Formats: sequence, structure tokens, C-alpha cells
Amino acid sequence: MKEKDTAILLFHCPDRLGIVTEITKFITDNNGNIVYLDQYVDKLDHMFFMRVEWELDNFLIPADKISEYFDTLYCKRFDISFHLYFGNVKPRMAIFVSKMSHCLYDLLARYNAGELNVEIPCIVSNHEDLRYVAEQFGIPYYVWSINKDWSNKQEVEAAEMQMLRDLKVNFIVLARYMQIISDEMIASYPNRIINIHHSFLPAFVGAKPYHQAYQRGVKIIGATSHYVTAELDAGPIIEQDVVRITHKDTPDSLALKGKDLEKIVLSRAVKKHVERKVLTYKNKTIIFS
Amino acid sequence: MKEKDTAILLFHCPDRLGIVTEITKFITDNNGNIVYLDQYVDKLDHMFFMRVEWELDNFLIPADKISEYFDTLYCKRFDISFHLYFGNVKPRMAIFVSKMSHCLYDLLARYNAGELNVEIPCIVSNHEDLRYVAEQFGIPYYVWSINKDWSNKQEVEAAEMQMLRDLKVNFIVLARYMQIISDEMIASYPNRIINIHHSFLPAFVGAKPYHQAYQRGVKIIGATSHYVTAELDAGPIIEQDVVRITHKDTPDSLALKGKDLEKIVLSRAVKKHVERKVLTYKNKTIIFS
Amino acid sequence: MKEKDTAILLFHCPDRLGIVTEITKFITDNNGNIVYLDQYVDKLDHMFFMRVEWELDNFLIPADKISEYFDTLYCKRFDISFHLYFGNVKPRMAIFVSKMSHCLYDLLARYNAGELNVEIPCIVSNHEDLRYVAEQFGIPYYVWSINKDWSNKQEVEAAEMQMLRDLKVNFIVLARYMQIISDEMIASYPNRIINIHHSFLPAFVGAKPYHQAYQRGVKIIGATSHYVTAELDAGPIIEQDVVRITHKDTPDSLALKGKDLEKIVLSRAVKKHVERKVLTYKNKTIIFS
Amino acid sequence: MKEKDTAILLFHCPDRLGIVTEITKFITDNNGNIVYLDQYVDKLDHMFFMRVEWELDNFLIPADKISEYFDTLYCKRFDISFHLYFGNVKPRMAIFVSKMSHCLYDLLARYNAGELNVEIPCIVSNHEDLRYVAEQFGIPYYVWSINKDWSNKQEVEAAEMQMLRDLKVNFIVLARYMQIISDEMIASYPNRIINIHHSFLPAFVGAKPYHQAYQRGVKIIGATSHYVTAELDAGPIIEQDVVRITHKDTPDSLALKGKDLEKIVLSRAVKKHVERKVLTYKNKTIIFS
Repeated sequence: MKEKDTAILLFHCPDRLGIVTEITKFITDNNGNIVYLDQYVDKLDHMFFMRVEWELDNFLIPADKISEYFDTLYCKRFDISFHLYFGNVKPRMAIFVSKMSHCLYDLLARYNAGELNVEIPCIVSNHEDLRYVAEQFGIPYYVWSINKDWSNKQEVEAAEMQMLRDLKVNFIVLARYMQIISDEMIASYPNRIINIHHSFLPAFVGAKPYHQAYQRGVKIIGATSHYVTAELDAGPIIEQDVVRITHKDTPDSLALKGKDLEKIVLSRAVKKHVERKVLTYKNKTIIFS
Repeated sequence: MKEKDTAILLFHCPDRLGIVTEITKFITDNNGNIVYLDQYVDKLDHMFFMRVEWELDNFLIPADKISEYFDTLYCKRFDISFHLYFGNVKPRMAIFVSKMSHCLYDLLARYNAGELNVEIPCIVSNHEDLRYVAEQFGIPYYVWSINKDWSNKQEVEAAEMQMLRDLKVNFIVLARYMQIISDEMIASYPNRIINIHHSFLPAFVGAKPYHQAYQRGVKIIGATSHYVTAELDAGPIIEQDVVRITHKDTPDSLALKGKDLEKIVLSRAVKKHVERKVLTYKNKTIIFS
Repeated sequence: MKEKDTAILLFHCPDRLGIVTEITKFITDNNGNIVYLDQYVDKLDHMFFMRVEWELDNFLIPADKISEYFDTLYCKRFDISFHLYFGNVKPRMAIFVSKMSHCLYDLLARYNAGELNVEIPCIVSNHEDLRYVAEQFGIPYYVWSINKDWSNKQEVEAAEMQMLRDLKVNFIVLARYMQIISDEMIASYPNRIINIHHSFLPAFVGAKPYHQAYQRGVKIIGATSHYVTAELDAGPIIEQDVVRITHKDTPDSLALKGKDLEKIVLSRAVKKHVERKVLTYKNKTIIFS
Repeated sequence: MKEKDTAILLFHCPDRLGIVTEITKFITDNNGNIVYLDQYVDKLDHMFFMRVEWELDNFLIPADKISEYFDTLYCKRFDISFHLYFGNVKPRMAIFVSKMSHCLYDLLARYNAGELNVEIPCIVSNHEDLRYVAEQFGIPYYVWSINKDWSNKQEVEAAEMQMLRDLKVNFIVLARYMQIISDEMIASYPNRIINIHHSFLPAFVGAKPYHQAYQRGVKIIGATSHYVTAELDAGPIIEQDVVRITHKDTPDSLALKGKDLEKIVLSRAVKKHVERKVLTYKNKTIIFS
């Protein structure tokens, strides 16, 4: 059975009396059948957050007018910021990789199994190593080598961004991509570049976190998926998970155990993003259920 | 049934052929029945670590001579550092507290239930707040107020250390004691002061870790028990644990959830220490099973 | 600062358009400031569940009339079942224990620290063993021995129930109480007797779950807190947690590790119950955030 | 750098004085450099278990004679049962699948990344569905349909077993293979068929465990990897893991969350098996570190 098309509205605004009532009334008065509603009030900041999804088949406002109507009727009145998505539009996801395959395989295996509601127009890399994986799944693989002195970095990123525009890419997943992304590229995809960092952030920012963890002698290691912002490893955290280790672990065994964390944490974050269940506010995420 | 008295030997030395054989032969040749043996080789550092426990009832070397014999026969030969303990000697534990009762109650409840093989000659505090808990359990409670300008800190610590010596205290547990311990005091109890820090170290070192965690927007919080060294929150980690949180948590709810972690993590660490299952090497711990 | 008094409404009904709107409108139209709203739709059963809490200081309907008004205005119309509570009324909790102290200490330590918003008029036991704990906390301790042949069980339970009525007890916590509760007593406290079972239910129902776990060779053990129903260990589950074990664990060490689980899981469940965040439906619980 | 070849010895016997000494002396006296030693004493059963690995390059006993020498010199004397493996021999693994790809992808991705030290001569299925995955990785895929009335089951299994013998398969991984294995086939691969069951065994044995979990209202679900024995879902457990769920989960969302558990738990178990770190005793496993 084909699922009905839905509108998905995420918004936040200063908290005040009656917002839920107003917005749900707007939807139901216009014959929208609400199939999902989750809300959250940040009482410290007095902010209200909501995700609501409704079926469009009998909705009186045409899909391409909903945004305009919602903006006009509510946004100024309640000081609302919002995003509107449609359930039948698959976001287009670019995957950036370097040499390690575990996160890439995990994403592609889910994609093939129909678990990830996206299009994947390209896989981008700075190395040839994983071309064979892209070929296994029949996805175009593009390699741009960046010189060690970064002399061609600006030019490479310009070409990459042109390609991402051409391919109408909506968001980027850095699946253990071992390159710094420039501020300009980050600015072009605000809260739309998802990274996996192989530590329990904010512990062990930067390079070689498993070596850092080994040196510090921690008893638990983690992985963190976050949106990329200008400051390294400091963007809004989407998902984290951990695994227990012991003194017997070496940096190598930590890296092996960590790979299982990395791929699961990254895939969970990507899934939440794709399902439009992540809202970002003040360098933090609200994750709807 | 009374358990037989045992000797517990922890040691480490450069790794080389035949150490296990030599040491177990030493014990069994002298009629010691080995009831526990756990070992670990750090292959990166080429170091060997071992914990062995044997029954003393038929052991041919008198208990008070074991240390001397072991030292003479093996330590120079194998470049061994060791600690020798006896199973029937209860270590004497001082508990330092400030105003929060959860860790103190957890330790004392275990002590009362016979789970913690220690003597507790005193509870020390910088506040009167928890005297009633000490009185519930019939344990002497000593208060030394430290001035805000630390003008009497040296004097207070001198008095405390005199008391700890008088009471033959072997090790100290800081059960959410909100005071910096001086380097001198730390030096007097090397790897014998156990602290609980209310974060997943090395994330959120220092003051107000739950507020730091809230600000950073992490999805998991933790607690860390470690030996106190001169550098703040940087000593060898004994035990850590974590709990999942969400965007709905406030600093207050984090603190509440964290309290359950803190008490369990601290008590686990204290137990490992009391059972002589912790060996410290290069600012890390080896935890025997 | 004293918190304002609130009304807490939990209800469920068949799902239909506009319920949230209706109910929040009812509250806000009558000047109630909503401080909490959480809802859940069971799409398989087409049921709607909601917990809403609002401040009473300016509410136009008197507190003692809210129940009547809500019933009249909405319950028939929407086929609603509801519970109404008031934030400033502390529920009265009886604790039943046998010989093990860990859960009792954990509850009482929280109670003393102000973490548990209850009155504890009595601790009930079938043994004298834990009287000293009750005395440490100044709470009346009542012992009724039940004969091994259960010849006096009916009579004892009659006396217990009379006492619970006299003491106006609202709910009962079985803190490792090793006695079967009769169906009659269960019927008197529907979904108001909270038990802790020392296994990951439905694995290892009944006696000696740690021995069962040891025999089966599981790699993880658990604890389960649930409401007591007529069928043994089969009532609605409120909270569960687990801990990893190894082949090195014995039934004794499992029991020790399990004790930490039991007390935390039980206390979490009691807290959720006391905060009126548990709704029971079809032998399952909805746990509001 | 090529790793040196090693011998790996796993054995168990009744516990008695001096076994470690004897066996390590046997190895070191013959110029074997021990690179791994882990042991475990089951004090309730008075059994001794050990895994020891040593380098063969200077070992005085030829590799193909070690088994005979060890048997002659120690097995009767100490009543030892043992397995001997060589580090440079890759075990040959058959994977059985039905329609779900997640476990298969996870194993093959690891295999491709060099994480799993095996040969995979075949993937076997009762359906065509996953042939494309096998083809992506260039591994032969064999399909045998089993009739619904099992009329051809005996014949199919005979053919499968002939093929497994022809391909010199050492062990079988059931990667969500939805068919009962006959007792005869199980008997041919004792403790060498690894299954993944999608529940936290022994809870929810048999069919549709996620539906069972949903019905029971548990707050945590799990997955269990175990050796297959004649009794359904009752063989020695190798690895388990769990994930927290809520009342919001449906059987479908449980199945989705569970898939991540299943693949990680199965792969961990396969890895332990391949590394020769699993010893089976009395329907339980000893897992060496």
C-alpha cells in the first residue's frame, strides 16, 4: 500500500499560551489529518519547538502554498522560524569518504534495503581506495586529490560545490572523510553536513582520538555524529554512543571496536536527519521521537 | 565458614620469557594453593602485570617474611615492582564529604550489608550538613571549615593528616568532597585517594560539569572515578559509566540522573581498590577481573 | 521559592481529530497555564494518551470541581478514561521488605535527600532483619511473620490491609519482599503495587533468577520493575536495565552485580510513579517524559 | 610486516595445582615464545580452562607433531580436552541467509576490509533474494528451495552437506536464515554453527520475537548469538547486546532497531569464533579476552 503524501512542519518560537492549539487548529480546520505531533518546551530559554506531520490528500491549502500561508498567518504573530518538508520528496545525499569503508558500507547497505529514504547521486573522495565499493552499488564515484600543501584546496572545493549544485545535493554525509571542510562550503550547507567523529565529544577533539583515549586510559570510548560548523568538532550533536573497553585494549583494538560505533551512530544520525526529526537551536539539537 | 587467609601479590616488570612459570612455581613449590591468577602483558610497552592470590595455611614461608623473600629472590632479577596484601587485613577507609549525601549513603549501605571489606574510622567534612548520616551509622564525623580565602587551609590539612595518621587510615574516598586537596596531602596517599568526578572524563574537567554538558548539548553523560594526582581530574581512571540523556534534560535533571551514576561508579571503584584488584602504571589502571 | 500548585491530568481515549486542541483549549480558556504537555498516539490500537499539567493559581474552575467538570464535558463525548492528581499532594508509600537492605536504603536515602516526593508512613516486613534500617531513618517498622505452611497468611494480609487503610497508604513498593501477594490485596491496589524482579523479564520468571541466568550462560543480566498483577512477574513493566557479565561470574557475583541494578531500576520506577508519569494500558505502560 | 605463524591451544581439565606451570614450561622449554595466555578457573565445577598462543618459528616440535606430543605428554595425566589451531590457517565459513540483507552485508563488509580472517567459499539460501549481494562481492550463491511441507528437506540438506564437505567448510553462520536446521546437520558441525536470534534469550524463544517483545511491553530489546544445538534457541550463548526502547515503538520499529543489534552481535560472535577465543563447556561459553 502506497503511503499518503504528508507535510512535515518543524518550527520554534518564543513559548506562549495556546501555540499548540492555534497550529493544530490551523491544520485540522483545513482538513489535515495529523499523523504525528511532538513538541518540546525549553523552559530555561522559554522557547517552544514542534514537529507536526499531516496528510495532504484532503488538505484545503495546496501543497505549494502551505509555506506562504503559514508564514503569513503565524510567523510574525508568534515570531516563528520554520522548515516545511514533504514526505514524498527524497532528499539527495552526497557521501564523502577517504579510505575506510565501514561507514560507507553501512549507509549503502541500508540504502539498498530501503531503510534510508534518500537519493544518492554521488560519492566523493580524495582517494581512489573505495571506488570499488561505489561500483558494487552502482553509484558514481568522484575523486579530487587535494595536495598536501593544500595549494589546490580552494579550486577543488569550488569544483565539488559546483558538482553538488549540479546534482541538486541537499545534504552531505562525511563518512570518515579525513579532510577539513572550508568555512565557505560549511556556510553553503548550514546544518546540512553530517560528520562522524570517532570519540565521545567533547573529549578528544581533533586528530587520532583513539590514541588520545588510549593515552588517557579511559574505560569507555564513544563516537559522535554532529552537524559541521566552522569550529572543529564543535557543531550540534545529533547522536552519540559508547562501548566499554579495558586496559587490554590497544589503539588498534580501540579503532576496531570504535568502527562498529561509528557506523551505527552515523547511520542513526543520517536517518533522523532524513526523517526530518532534527531541529537545531543554539548549537544544540532537538531530536523528535 | 571462615575463609582461609590469603596472600595477594600484585606486581609488574618488563616482559620476558617464563615469568608466570617462575612465580607460580615459587608459590606452589612452597605449598601455596593458588586461588586466583590473572595476568596481562602490555605489548606496546613490553610490560608484564600479574595478580596472584594463594592460601597461606600450608605456605612454608611465614607471612611476615614473604615480602622479604620475594624481594630478594625475584625483584632485582626481573626488575619487579610489587605490592603484597593479606586477605584478612581490612583496609581503613576515610570518607570525605561536603553537602550531598548520595555517595555517602551508597558506601555506608554497602558497608552495613557487609559488601565492603573495610573499616571506616571517620567521615571528614568541611560542612555540618551530613553529620546526621554519620550518626545514623554510628561513625565519627569530623568537621573542619576551610575559610573562603583558604587562609587556614594549610593548617586544616595538617590537622586532618595528623588525624588520618592517628586513625591509621590507609586510603581516602572523596565522596563528592567539593574541595581541592593539596599536593602535599596527595603525595602522602599516592594512588590511595579515590575521587568521583561527575563527568565522562576527560570531557568537562573542573567545575559544574553538568552545566558544561548542558551547554554542549551532549546526548550521553557520565561519571568517572579516578585516583587523585596533582593535576586536577587527570589521575588514573578506575571506573566510568554513562547514561543516555535527551534535549529535554536541564542542568537540574542532569544532576539528578548523574547522581545515580556517581554513586554506583564510585562504589565500584572503591570495591576494586579494596579487593586489591587495581594496579597503576603510567597514569593508567590495570583492573584485574 | 515555593512551587505553584498544579493539576496533573492523565487520560486515554480512542484517537480522533482535535483532542489535543479541545483539551488544551479547555485549560487555557479557563486561565490555566500549561507547564507540561506530552502525548502519544498508539497507531496500531488507535488510542490517544496524554499527560498535561497546569498551574492552578488563576484557574477558573475550583480544584475540587475539576474532576467533575472534565468528566461531564469530555469523558462521554470522547470516551475518555482519566486520572487527576495535584502536584502539592504527596502520595503515601508503604515499603515491604524481607532481609536484603539495598533497595530499602536506596529509597530512604533519596527520601531523606528530598528526591522522592512522598510520605512513608510505614515499612512492613515478614522478618525483623531490617528493623535497624527503619530505626536509622525514624520510620515505623511492622513485622508480621507468615508461617511456612501459609496457615496464617489470610489473617496476616487482612491485618496488613487494615493498617494500610488506617495509614491512608496510596501505593506499595515491594523492595525485594520475598512473599507472594494475594490476589485480593493486588485487587485493592490495582497498578499501585510496584515490584522489583531480579531478572530481565520475561526471562527467568519466578525463583532464583540469578541461578537461572548462571545456568543458561547469558552474557547480560537485568532487573525489571513492574506493577504487580495476579499472574506472577507478568504485570506491566515500568523500567528495566541491564549489566554485562562474563563466564567468570558465579551466582554470587551475579547477585552482587544485580543488586546495583535492582535498586536503581526500582527507584527510577517509583519516581516515575510518584511524578504521575506512568499510564497503564493493556498490560503495558506509557511512560511520559 | 608479515606476522609470525603461531600455535593456538585451547583446553580444559579438572583444576589442580601447577597446570599453568606445567603447560607454560612445556612451551617455553621447547623455545616457544608465548604471545598470549589467558586462563580461567571455574571454582564451582573445579574446572580449569586455558588459551595459550605461541610463536612457531623456533619451536622445537614440528607443527604437525604438536598435537600428538601434547596428547601423549599431558592429556591423560591431567584429563585434558583440547583443540589446537594455527594462526596462519584461515577457517572456511559458509553463510546461510534468507531474505534480509543486514547481517550478510555486515559480514561481507568486514571480510572485504580484512577484519575477518576467513575464506568464504559460498553463500547458501532458500531464496533468490540476496543473490545480488553475493554477486556484488563475487561470492558463489547457491539456492535450494525447501518445500513448505518439508517434503524435500532431507534431500536438500543432504545436498547442502555434500557441498559443504566438497568446499571444506569449517563452520556455518546463519545470518538470519529462517529455516530449522536438522539434528543431523547440527551433529556434523558441533559448536560450529553460529546463529543470531533476534531477542535477548532466553526471553522470546521461537518465532516473531519482536512481536512478542511488543506484546509484553518490555523497555529493552536484545539480540543473541549462539551455537546451534538440537534444542531450538537453547545452545551456548556467545554474545548478546541490547538497546533501550519505549512505548512508542511498534513491532516494525523494534525490528528496525533490532537489525542494528543483530548484525553487530553476530559479527562479534563470528570474530571471537574465528580468532579461536571461544571454548564451550556444559552448554556455556568461555570467551577469552
